[in-house]
Amino acid sequence: MNLPATSKLPFGGDYNPEQWPEEVWQEDYRLFDSARIDTVTLGVFVWALTQPAPDVYDFSTLDRIVERAAAEGRNICLATGTGAHPAWLARAYPEVTRTDFEGRRHRFGQRHNSCPNSPVFRRLSAELARRVAARYADNPSVVAWHVGNEYGGACHCDLCAAGFRDWLRARYGTLEALNAAWYTTFWSHTFTDWDEIEPPSALTEHWRGPNHTAFQGITLDYLRFMSDAMLANFRDEKAAIRESSALPVTTNFMGMYRPIDYHRWAADLDFASWDNYPPDDRSPAQMALAHDLMRGLKGGQPFWLMEQTPSYTASRDVNPLKRPGVMRLWSWQAVAHGADAVLFFQMRASRGACEKYHGAVIGHAGRGDTRVFREVTQLGTELDRLGGLVLGARTPARVALLFDWDSWWALEISDGPSRLVRYQQVVLAYYRALWDAGVDVDVVPVTTDLSPYDVVVAPALHMLKGDLPQRLEAVAERGGSVVTTFLSGRVDEHDNAFLMDVPGPLGPLMGIRIDEWDAREPEVVNPVRLRTGAGRVEVEVESRLVFELVIPQGAEVVGSYQADFYAGTPAVTRNRFGAGLGWYVAAGLDQEGVGTVVRQVLEQHDLVGPYPDVPELETAVRVAPDGTRLLFLLNHRAEPVEVVAHTGGTDLLSGDPIEYGQPIGLGPYGVMVLRTSTP
Amino acid sequence: MNLPATSKLPFGGDYNPEQWPEEVWQEDYRLFDSARIDTVTLGVFVWALTQPAPDVYDFSTLDRIVERAAAEGRNICLATGTGAHPAWLARAYPEVTRTDFEGRRHRFGQRHNSCPNSPVFRRLSAELARRVAARYADNPSVVAWHVGNEYGGACHCDLCAAGFRDWLRARYGTLEALNAAWYTTFWSHTFTDWDEIEPPSALTEHWRGPNHTAFQGITLDYLRFMSDAMLANFRDEKAAIRESSALPVTTNFMGMYRPIDYHRWAADLDFASWDNYPPDDRSPAQMALAHDLMRGLKGGQPFWLMEQTPSYTASRDVNPLKRPGVMRLWSWQAVAHGADAVLFFQMRASRGACEKYHGAVIGHAGRGDTRVFREVTQLGTELDRLGGLVLGARTPARVALLFDWDSWWALEISDGPSRLVRYQQVVLAYYRALWDAGVDVDVVPVTTDLSPYDVVVAPALHMLKGDLPQRLEAVAERGGSVVTTFLSGRVDEHDNAFLMDVPGPLGPLMGIRIDEWDAREPEVVNPVRLRTGAGRVEVEVESRLVFELVIPQGAEVVGSYQADFYAGTPAVTRNRFGAGLGWYVAAGLDQEGVGTVVRQVLEQHDLVGPYPDVPELETAVRVAPDGTRLLFLLNHRAEPVEVVAHTGGTDLLSGDPIEYGQPIGLGPYGVMVLRTSTP
Amino acid sequence: MNLPATSKLPFGGDYNPEQWPEEVWQEDYRLFDSARIDTVTLGVFVWALTQPAPDVYDFSTLDRIVERAAAEGRNICLATGTGAHPAWLARAYPEVTRTDFEGRRHRFGQRHNSCPNSPVFRRLSAELARRVAARYADNPSVVAWHVGNEYGGACHCDLCAAGFRDWLRARYGTLEALNAAWYTTFWSHTFTDWDEIEPPSALTEHWRGPNHTAFQGITLDYLRFMSDAMLANFRDEKAAIRESSALPVTTNFMGMYRPIDYHRWAADLDFASWDNYPPDDRSPAQMALAHDLMRGLKGGQPFWLMEQTPSYTASRDVNPLKRPGVMRLWSWQAVAHGADAVLFFQMRASRGACEKYHGAVIGHAGRGDTRVFREVTQLGTELDRLGGLVLGARTPARVALLFDWDSWWALEISDGPSRLVRYQQVVLAYYRALWDAGVDVDVVPVTTDLSPYDVVVAPALHMLKGDLPQRLEAVAERGGSVVTTFLSGRVDEHDNAFLMDVPGPLGPLMGIRIDEWDAREPEVVNPVRLRTGAGRVEVEVESRLVFELVIPQGAEVVGSYQADFYAGTPAVTRNRFGAGLGWYVAAGLDQEGVGTVVRQVLEQHDLVGPYPDVPELETAVRVAPDGTRLLFLLNHRAEPVEVVAHTGGTDLLSGDPIEYGQPIGLGPYGVMVLRTSTP
Repeated sequence: MNLPATSKLPFGGDYNPEQWPEEVWQEDYRLFDSARIDTVTLGVFVWALTQPAPDVYDFSTLDRIVERAAAEGRNICLATGTGAHPAWLARAYPEVTRTDFEGRRHRFGQRHNSCPNSPVFRRLSAELARRVAARYADNPSVVAWHVGNEYGGACHCDLCAAGFRDWLRARYGTLEALNAAWYTTFWSHTFTDWDEIEPPSALTEHWRGPNHTAFQGITLDYLRFMSDAMLANFRDEKAAIRESSALPVTTNFMGMYRPIDYHRWAADLDFASWDNYPPDDRSPAQMALAHDLMRGLKGGQPFWLMEQTPSYTASRDVNPLKRPGVMRLWSWQAVAHGADAVLFFQMRASRGACEKYHGAVIGHAGRGDTRVFREVTQLGTELDRLGGLVLGARTPARVALLFDWDSWWALEISDGPSRLVRYQQVVLAYYRALWDAGVDVDVVPVTTDLSPYDVVVAPALHMLKGDLPQRLEAVAERGGSVVTTFLSGRVDEHDNAFLMDVPGPLGPLMGIRIDEWDAREPEVVNPVRLRTGAGRVEVEVESRLVFELVIPQGAEVVGSYQADFYAGTPAVTRNRFGAGLGWYVAAGLDQEGVGTVVRQVLEQHDLVGPYPDVPELETAVRVAPDGTRLLFLLNHRAEPVEVVAHTGGTDLLSGDPIEYGQPIGLGPYGVMVLRTSTP
Repeated sequence: MNLPATSKLPFGGDYNPEQWPEEVWQEDYRLFDSARIDTVTLGVFVWALTQPAPDVYDFSTLDRIVERAAAEGRNICLATGTGAHPAWLARAYPEVTRTDFEGRRHRFGQRHNSCPNSPVFRRLSAELARRVAARYADNPSVVAWHVGNEYGGACHCDLCAAGFRDWLRARYGTLEALNAAWYTTFWSHTFTDWDEIEPPSALTEHWRGPNHTAFQGITLDYLRFMSDAMLANFRDEKAAIRESSALPVTTNFMGMYRPIDYHRWAADLDFASWDNYPPDDRSPAQMALAHDLMRGLKGGQPFWLMEQTPSYTASRDVNPLKRPGVMRLWSWQAVAHGADAVLFFQMRASRGACEKYHGAVIGHAGRGDTRVFREVTQLGTELDRLGGLVLGARTPARVALLFDWDSWWALEISDGPSRLVRYQQVVLAYYRALWDAGVDVDVVPVTTDLSPYDVVVAPALHMLKGDLPQRLEAVAERGGSVVTTFLSGRVDEHDNAFLMDVPGPLGPLMGIRIDEWDAREPEVVNPVRLRTGAGRVEVEVESRLVFELVIPQGAEVVGSYQADFYAGTPAVTRNRFGAGLGWYVAAGLDQEGVGTVVRQVLEQHDLVGPYPDVPELETAVRVAPDGTRLLFLLNHRAEPVEVVAHTGGTDLLSGDPIEYGQPIGLGPYGVMVLRTSTP
Repeated sequence: MNLPATSKLPFGGDYNPEQWPEEVWQEDYRLFDSARIDTVTLGVFVWALTQPAPDVYDFSTLDRIVERAAAEGRNICLATGTGAHPAWLARAYPEVTRTDFEGRRHRFGQRHNSCPNSPVFRRLSAELARRVAARYADNPSVVAWHVGNEYGGACHCDLCAAGFRDWLRARYGTLEALNAAWYTTFWSHTFTDWDEIEPPSALTEHWRGPNHTAFQGITLDYLRFMSDAMLANFRDEKAAIRESSALPVTTNFMGMYRPIDYHRWAADLDFASWDNYPPDDRSPAQMALAHDLMRGLKGGQPFWLMEQTPSYTASRDVNPLKRPGVMRLWSWQAVAHGADAVLFFQMRASRGACEKYHGAVIGHAGRGDTRVFREVTQLGTELDRLGGLVLGARTPARVALLFDWDSWWALEISDGPSRLVRYQQVVLAYYRALWDAGVDVDVVPVTTDLSPYDVVVAPALHMLKGDLPQRLEAVAERGGSVVTTFLSGRVDEHDNAFLMDVPGPLGPLMGIRIDEWDAREPEVVNPVRLRTGAGRVEVEVESRLVFELVIPQGAEVVGSYQADFYAGTPAVTRNRFGAGLGWYVAAGLDQEGVGTVVRQVLEQHDLVGPYPDVPELETAVRVAPDGTRLLFLLNHRAEPVEVVAHTGGTDLLSGDPIEYGQPIGLGPYGVMVLRTSTP
């Protein structure tokens, strides 16, 4: 574990004093004091400031900023500042800007604008990181390095084409191997020279956007390559930092962000961090999933919540205000799922440009008496009260959910059976069922050791790589349960179909075979009659989008279609395998259907949480290094809720003792952090 | 007639053994045998295989593929393989790739990717066709040549610009004539040098896509030119084939495909063939229309159904499964409408790339015991039973529907009155009314001799060329009926308005005049009260989109608007002309309205089929060269249907005799092929 | 005042005899005579005709056209003909065509196609204007010059980039000032050399189209620059005209047209003119707003209605027909709001190209007996009857509505709080409330002297420039009322937020403070309970999109939210300031809500018109230079309406006397022009 060394959970966020005259800084720190803000992220976009010309480095302003923060006793998360390149760089080296999917070379503008394969970008970004680290490594207030910012996007320029060919040479060795992997006999695509290979784009293999390609193999490899190319950028800077500092290094991720395979990156980060901007204010399960995914990057090690808005975003078409209490609730949810820091974007609102109306702890009027500022202060006070107790605490999960960028990409760039199936939605439906049941979940890559888990859920596991089928079988073999769904087990690592019955190598575990499948427009519903747990009645739920026609090969039917020519055939099956079970869900069940299946699986392993039938009441557990067990209760509803304590302990926020069996109430968006008496 | 010489209706389809090791081929032929597959289309995408480098031709693999097919006794439809160019070609000659409507030169990728005016493409594609034909012409298993594949798309490069100018010089002779045709005085567009003329595109005359142009004349001529340019590609290859083979040559068309004017191509094909991929599984009338259009290309000569999927497509957003029985039903529908071959895409499913999930006779697991394979086998058996009886049979139609690419283009690129009017939809509504009435229809170009027909239907005949008005008048003159609609008779061959009352030269025949018209959003309905046949009551139907205001000039009012300021004025009229009638439908009637009009017209000529009131029960007749009359009954519903035989004969599929007046039942998606006793 | 000298209100429009043989001209004038058409706009697109080659000018055709019009006794509005450049120009100077927002250099096509910063375009367009003016200045039939046509669009080429940098140098003087104005410290955008600055586009600062920019400051300045660049084109031509003619010069505007800030142009026009093509036929208030905006350009001076269609447009997806009476009604509405000419596009319909189906006074059949021609004739007769009475008449408004292109741009390019707020819609809602109340309104720029007005309405006044806050305070100070809304007072002229409480410098006048705001999807409604006028009950109306949370600082609450966590807090306030009031509407009220607020304001100043409760009955007043008062009554409904005369006078159209208190009836779409007896 290599998290920044702090005595308590850091609280604060992105701070850009370079945008303000120094008299404003003084007011800032006065307000920071009052809100218990102890940590600032500095210098995220200061390249033009620190290197105003090709041969000129000028750290005078950043020096003052860092010195002031240190003098004020704040922890500093110091950025290398390479998330946006300066205008002079784009003018001096036009190749540093990106060429987009449409084949258009961009000119200077925006941010995240550097071609990852541009030699000048790689050289100068590393050099800047080197100088920043060398200059501030000895400042004891600096606790972590922040490289770049929200890596992402893609470039399709000639430099990237050359880089892609090198990457392919390293991956495949020969053109024969590449032609086989990409199945180029199809449509006369055989490559006879590496230089014939073009980055897939709107000008080459793609029709209607990035997901619609003539050759999945090319497109899939380009996604992998681009993720690796940006990882190389991160590595460039980290290596440069390491020349003078051993402090932990991170970059801020974005949760379920498709362009970057964070699992390929995880080993290179000392600790994970991410920016939580959920699409709306009705997404507690989706945020929980993203937190768990981020925690899963480093094997369960806590992460930093690097950014969240205290109030509203600005980049959306509609930017709603977080209701009173919601920012606090969501901050505690992050902690409950493994966050060891709670940070905001941003400390003081910009006057101009596109984030002018993005919420901030301090608004344009500079007031400390706004509702938002009061809520930030309340949270700061609570985090102070918590102290260092939670630092390094782990989630004791016995359920794993497999998340796989390769399957995500392969599923969504596939032609047929249905472009309407979205990986995130399928994954979220299964995660949400687990979340509703109140069970702690590790969201992990497919390469994870599965031996600690009783239940492994693998939604839409389109691609199977390596020994994963064997490892899943081993879970069942020893008595565990494995759940998978339609469109799983279809392709190998090159996106070529397995030449065997669907679901490919998962067939034996699932005890089924699938010869054909139907896909329908979203308004077409096929009802599915589904057995619930032992002794209970059947329910009828809805299925949509994809309907695989299952021929049992030993599996027992748990649910069956009720309509169309395949009425009466299996939609959900369960196969005894060793001492355990393989569950297969052949259709796009609605949330009730997914919940019905998942609940049965969990019940069998006695893994259902204490309040599975209280809607939107989330529970989560963290166990501190010293064995202290913290139970988080989070009420995501605008109405109060009352439940009976299923364990005794102390509410760390109020200080109140809680006894087993006593009624406990949580107000609207209420939070309780219970240090349980029975670890 | 120049159809491939076969002893029975060919059955099989696209087969790509070059994608598989030879041991798989053996298994393929075993399965082909069991499914009665006697015909394979080979080599459609083998350019990279047969010409792996500029100066290297290598037919070794294709030799083995052809030899094997011949040895296995299959008919071979042999492709020239030029539907996609190799990667080395795109790299060596960047000008071989296309420049799209947005002005972007593409790089290597996809298929149908060659600029039709690229000299190197023209030279090398012809050379490949020449070599393929020379090499395999003497193989007696080869029955037909398949040139390119699904010609289409467009290019806008400088080579095309130069070709366009040549084409214009040939068409117009002088710039004066061109300026007049394109009406360039408008908006100061007068061309003073041929080189000033640019291909119309998003960078020149177009705003919102290919249909939205400032100059209809330029855009219309570019559509004609591009269709001709690709025809030149086809001619290049056919001429090269003719150097060594007199076997029939085709290319696979796509039904109602807008970019290519198949009527301009028809004379160059020895026989027509097409790929039937209807947009959904509720389109029997639309498929029938497309079949009839294809049959109309060669004056009623039978065509080949070159491709259809046995199960699902892969390229759609949603790719539904053909229900059990539907593939068989649709295959027989093709035969009923003139197909002399039933072929699939594809024999064995690709492992990779964008057609991996496209249905195939043999799936990834290589099974012969799937439902799909069983249905293919059943169909193969039935076609065996039919033998050669149907080959060369003709449709005895007395109704013609005019289909005109020029009117299609002109209507849809027009500014005003409504972009919501779609040519295919208008045509389909009238065709569907004919189909519902159970009458055999020839779908023909406007140049067709109309003397064999009692009824001529010309929906949305926007453009009038040549002596068509006179030939339509002649139909009525001799007692026939001519039906046309709103937005007909508006423009001449250059898309310039006729300087006379609407509907232009159709005015005398229709006996009306139109000074103004209304267009409304699709939710605006104007009810139309419509007379039905003699003695029957009036019906009220709906009209939408376009409402022409008719001033009768001798015509009788059949239907009138019921709303808006033109309530009470004519919406449908009928004009006595000679011994016959001219019918005019001035508004976008709903299907009931169109049906009401069309039924009256057919009744007058005693052309209504035997079961006009049985929904979705299709009837079609083919008369074999020996006079044998085949009546096809096709039940397009998932429910069984029972009717009374209106003729006696023998059901060729069951072998059962049918007597006049006996009840006959058709199961869900059921088919009967009745060799009638009274020819 | 510098309007063309005419003896009566000119009637006619765009006439393109160059498209026709001369025998048609004769027929045209015969029809013009019968329709009382006395004015023709000539030569709008004749560049290719008058300058067929770089060094060749040929006025022979235009000579004949002008001579004929003069000989026929028509007034001529003569165009310079530079709205579309010739093909030879684009070929000889490729830089004359525009580069679009996507960075694509266009080739020859369309119209309005010249780069405004192209030296060759500037030189040749001015030269053409010079020659046209010199040639025809002495023709007494020429009454006005028409420069270019519907200026608009934008270019993003390198010439424009250079021009932009010059414009910026002139505006900011130093890069330091520019960096401060654009807030470039954000995202490392500091410019260190003028040449680093790129035109904002899809290739630089923009994501999803022209409104979605990373830097509002850059985008805002480019909008200003492009408007100024085209103004320079206009000035080029006007200066060239002035070398030989002192006649009034105009160009045809397009009402609320976003790309051009007409207020920046107004001083350069001798008189304003505009083309009225409302989006549908249910927009009387929107047309009235546009008329008032155009009248406001020259301080209330009358304008010309330069174009309207007699029947339908052609460029829309759906082009509905103007119902009988509507063209007349709308023509009189234009006059009622300040039009001193009623002109059509077009006299005779084009045969070809994209306006072939655009309505015309004379259609393709050349008839004079169509409904449209009859209505044109009726209107011509009525205008004859009116004579010169209305020429130069003014609108006696005591209400001003502020319209501000800068606020429009700033509001709509803003990131946050809601992209769904559209400036035009907000302005229209307030205008419509005034229109419903029957009050005459001046729509004026923010720089206008506000002292003549009792009420000033400033919807969505996002940007505050100069001393506007003080001038608004002065209105209230002396007893007037100022109304403003949500999202007002947010930014300074550089789009940087005011560092003070919202609504910025409007705070004292409004007596409120806003710390936070909510934005919601359009389906989310927050009911607002609203006080109506004194003694009346409260109403509950709906609010949507944006909800500011108001903390009164002295203001009185007029309406309050009824839902969400801010239920009960103010949504509408009223603040006593001096002898007057400042009204603030904090949310997107529905039309009833806006009407309720506006009606109270007007009532207080006794400004409500005579028939505020008769729906769609418009009243408007013009006072002629001799003091004659004309009251226009316009019934915009398809049903007749009867009201009681609130003043006596003479109906100039019928000649009937009207007595105070007598019932007066207006037919469907009826019009009355009352010369009132009491001025």
